[in-house]
Amino acid sequence: MSSNEQVVIAELPAEKLAPEHFEVVRTPPPEPGEGELLVRTLAITIGAGQRAGLQGSASYAGAPEEGVVMAGTGVGVVEGGSHPDFAVGDRVMGPLGWQQLTVVHGRHLHSVSSDGDIPTQLGALGTNGLTAYFGLLDIGAPEPGETVVVSAAGGSVGHIVGQIARLQGARVVGVTGSDDKCAMLVEELGFDEAVNYKSDTFRADFKAATPDRIGVYFDNTGGPILESALFRMRPHGRIVCCGAVSQYDTSSPAGGPRGIPGLLVNNRVRMQGFLVFDYADRFAEARRAIGGWIDDGSLVARTTVYEGLDQAPQAFVDLLAGRTTGTTVVRI
Amino acid sequence: MSSNEQVVIAELPAEKLAPEHFEVVRTPPPEPGEGELLVRTLAITIGAGQRAGLQGSASYAGAPEEGVVMAGTGVGVVEGGSHPDFAVGDRVMGPLGWQQLTVVHGRHLHSVSSDGDIPTQLGALGTNGLTAYFGLLDIGAPEPGETVVVSAAGGSVGHIVGQIARLQGARVVGVTGSDDKCAMLVEELGFDEAVNYKSDTFRADFKAATPDRIGVYFDNTGGPILESALFRMRPHGRIVCCGAVSQYDTSSPAGGPRGIPGLLVNNRVRMQGFLVFDYADRFAEARRAIGGWIDDGSLVARTTVYEGLDQAPQAFVDLLAGRTTGTTVVRI
Repeated sequence: MSSNEQVVIAELPAEKLAPEHFEVVRTPPPEPGEGELLVRTLAITIGAGQRAGLQGSASYAGAPEEGVVMAGTGVGVVEGGSHPDFAVGDRVMGPLGWQQLTVVHGRHLHSVSSDGDIPTQLGALGTNGLTAYFGLLDIGAPEPGETVVVSAAGGSVGHIVGQIARLQGARVVGVTGSDDKCAMLVEELGFDEAVNYKSDTFRADFKAATPDRIGVYFDNTGGPILESALFRMRPHGRIVCCGAVSQYDTSSPAGGPRGIPGLLVNNRVRMQGFLVFDYADRFAEARRAIGGWIDDGSLVARTTVYEGLDQAPQAFVDLLAGRTTGTTVVRI
Repeated sequence: MSSNEQVVIAELPAEKLAPEHFEVVRTPPPEPGEGELLVRTLAITIGAGQRAGLQGSASYAGAPEEGVVMAGTGVGVVEGGSHPDFAVGDRVMGPLGWQQLTVVHGRHLHSVSSDGDIPTQLGALGTNGLTAYFGLLDIGAPEPGETVVVSAAGGSVGHIVGQIARLQGARVVGVTGSDDKCAMLVEELGFDEAVNYKSDTFRADFKAATPDRIGVYFDNTGGPILESALFRMRPHGRIVCCGAVSQYDTSSPAGGPRGIPGLLVNNRVRMQGFLVFDYADRFAEARRAIGGWIDDGSLVARTTVYEGLDQAPQAFVDLLAGRTTGTTVVRI
């Protein structure tokens, strides 16, 4: 191995992200130091929230800027270095970045099964699945029979939220951006209904899909869909604030949703943001539960897989444009 | 008594409320029916939230409209009628309206002490105090040393919120609309700091008053003050949505606050609306606690008192303009 292929940020996007904001470079292979491991990346996952990180306000060490390797979670194999928790040949997951070879301290990695399906490890058993699990069950806490609405419902987190909600006995409505994805949600993933937010009849469709109004709204989008949901919440409803993908890939984010705070008061609604990392001490519990649902066929872990590191920029653009479903994965 | 003086709605306000939106009329004294009591009003209290009720979207029976007696909570004395829970001469509190004499079913009334201070019964021991108590302690749940910020801090609910927060060991910052009210909050009510939102230096003052950011923000205003607080919340902070007085007395309410949902996610903030009536089974507990604090001097129940039913419209206008402090009461 004479070089390490990497995708670096060529230019921070001012408007919509395009593949040209990245470039592929080759650098010498890195050398692990004390406690560090040399990891060969097998696949990375891309999440919409990473677009927010490119908005340029961060200033910490390693913040996205021109010339820096794009950050991202990946699954890889230990090829060298030393750390007491890992051996050469182990499969690991962690912050590998968009590159073939990474040097990373062992404390940032965790082991995953060497015979598991890699896209599933990165998706339903990775951060996306954990985010869906804790956001829905801990923050949303749906009760059987309640209506749960999830936005970006065909996406990495959303498609798992809807399926876990269904397993809790909730009535599940997905909001997504195409009729094809609506059909996929209902026919393949068992959603009760799905609504296309790009349709001219969205408001009427959304109202018709929520005749008992909304008990839990799991918000991955912010913006107009959040506002629509606010006006449909039941008394004592909960809004789980997970992400705001409608606001990421633009230089002119929408204003705040109308109806705040008035509708929160009148309907005694709780609206709560969360970050999955706060639940680190319960990740094992969640992985056991999600893994069990996958094994017994009650949860389908969808992925959209791209082949080749050089496809990562296009995968990211496709993800933000709503052209992927489930977890977006790039095999290296 | 040959007639009953009443204040009726002459015209629903399209823009700012003015005294001319009401008129004083005289009608024959009402006659109580089965289970009803004839109550002579001693005093009424006016709350900013009643302005929201005049915005004209309600359609239920008794909704505010031209010619209807203005609704409101009052304290009065039973003069006639019969109900097993009350006798002639009892002092009662309930929905008496802006009128000298009311006929009201006993189930809508509750007894108050005949020798208690009436403005305090209507304020700190009434809905305002209960709202402050449950909103702060149950929804906000401040911990000792946390910074609690309250808007409309000189108002009926706000001035009690701040004092209860101080009694919980919190650091208390009030936001209000004049330097005089700021001084009153700090010097008379024991707030740690107070900030005038009408000052040109509000943003800088607000930041300086919250060096550790905000643990609990008790929001009575909505609008720009809510937005300012959103940008100052600590991780895991709580926003108690109680009211939106900035949005009531206008025909052009502000858009929603920027930063929602992004800031709620990043800081894992919980934002929750509530209505005090949901806590009816705990009112006695709250009244005991508040009464104890008043009796031992640790809570000051402020009131602004107007004399005469015909002053009620002006009192309401003054309240909305921020010219009153504490609970606004009109003695009849």
